[in-house]
Amino acid sequence: MFSFRPIGFVQSPYTDTAQIPKGPGAEHAAEGVLELLPEFESGLTDIDGFSHLYVLWIFDRAEGYDLLSMPPTDDRVHGVFATRAPRRPNPIGLTVVRLLRREGTRLFVRGLDMLNGTPIVDLKPYLSSVPSGEIKRGWLAEARVD
Amino acid sequence: MFSFRPIGFVQSPYTDTAQIPKGPGAEHAAEGVLELLPEFESGLTDIDGFSHLYVLWIFDRAEGYDLLSMPPTDDRVHGVFATRAPRRPNPIGLTVVRLLRREGTRLFVRGLDMLNGTPIVDLKPYLSSVPSGEIKRGWLAEARVD
Repeated sequence: MFSFRPIGFVQSPYTDTAQIPKGPGAEHAAEGVLELLPEFESGLTDIDGFSHLYVLWIFDRAEGYDLLSMPPTDDRVHGVFATRAPRRPNPIGLTVVRLLRREGTRLFVRGLDMLNGTPIVDLKPYLSSVPSGEIKRGWLAEARVD
Repeated sequence: MFSFRPIGFVQSPYTDTAQIPKGPGAEHAAEGVLELLPEFESGLTDIDGFSHLYVLWIFDRAEGYDLLSMPPTDDRVHGVFATRAPRRPNPIGLTVVRLLRREGTRLFVRGLDMLNGTPIVDLKPYLSSVPSGEIKRGWLAEARVD
């Protein structure tokens, strides 16, 4: 077992999962703040130069998990590791956000898809991308888009 | 505090961190296997259709952390959240791999950059990429490349 503690918390406009756009066509344009705990501030040195960040966070309001489930945007069952479902064996979320600016321990970002108050466990620079022509999107390519 | 347990382990050609290519110009072409524990096999249903996966894993041989450190590819100090250094407050690693094929609980992949035996805590489909023209790489853009 490995134990993690929050390094900060998300300030997001979303207070209910029903408000968060989901599925292949979802646009994540929500803006908010990643607020780090003061003890971690020096770990943000130089982060301003990056345009995009990975945010690793906890689905802290999800309970238990299913290995097979039906996503909200499809009518077929898929394995949990082929989805981004919150109820997973280790409920870690991953989001790429655009960094707009930093003010001390506060990172102003665009592209949030997590609830207000979500615990953050790590931040990393987003460095490279796989050329979009090389990406196969599995069952999502043929999923029903609402 | 949040506790996570391994869902599987990495079989990688790397047994020492010195063998792993590092820095902005590093090519991660190593092939290996992500072997899930049998109890999680059904969670892999439909994963075969995706070309790329996110692997979330633990730097299980790193101890402690520094908020400021000098990466092997630069001669300046940077904040830990602006690097991918192993010694971080929550030692979670993130790698994008190419999925070559699946055999039961075994995912054959290319692009490993972790040590043999590394614990895996989550897998997610890699869905989209930020257009490379939009990415700013911060201090890495001007770092010394060996």
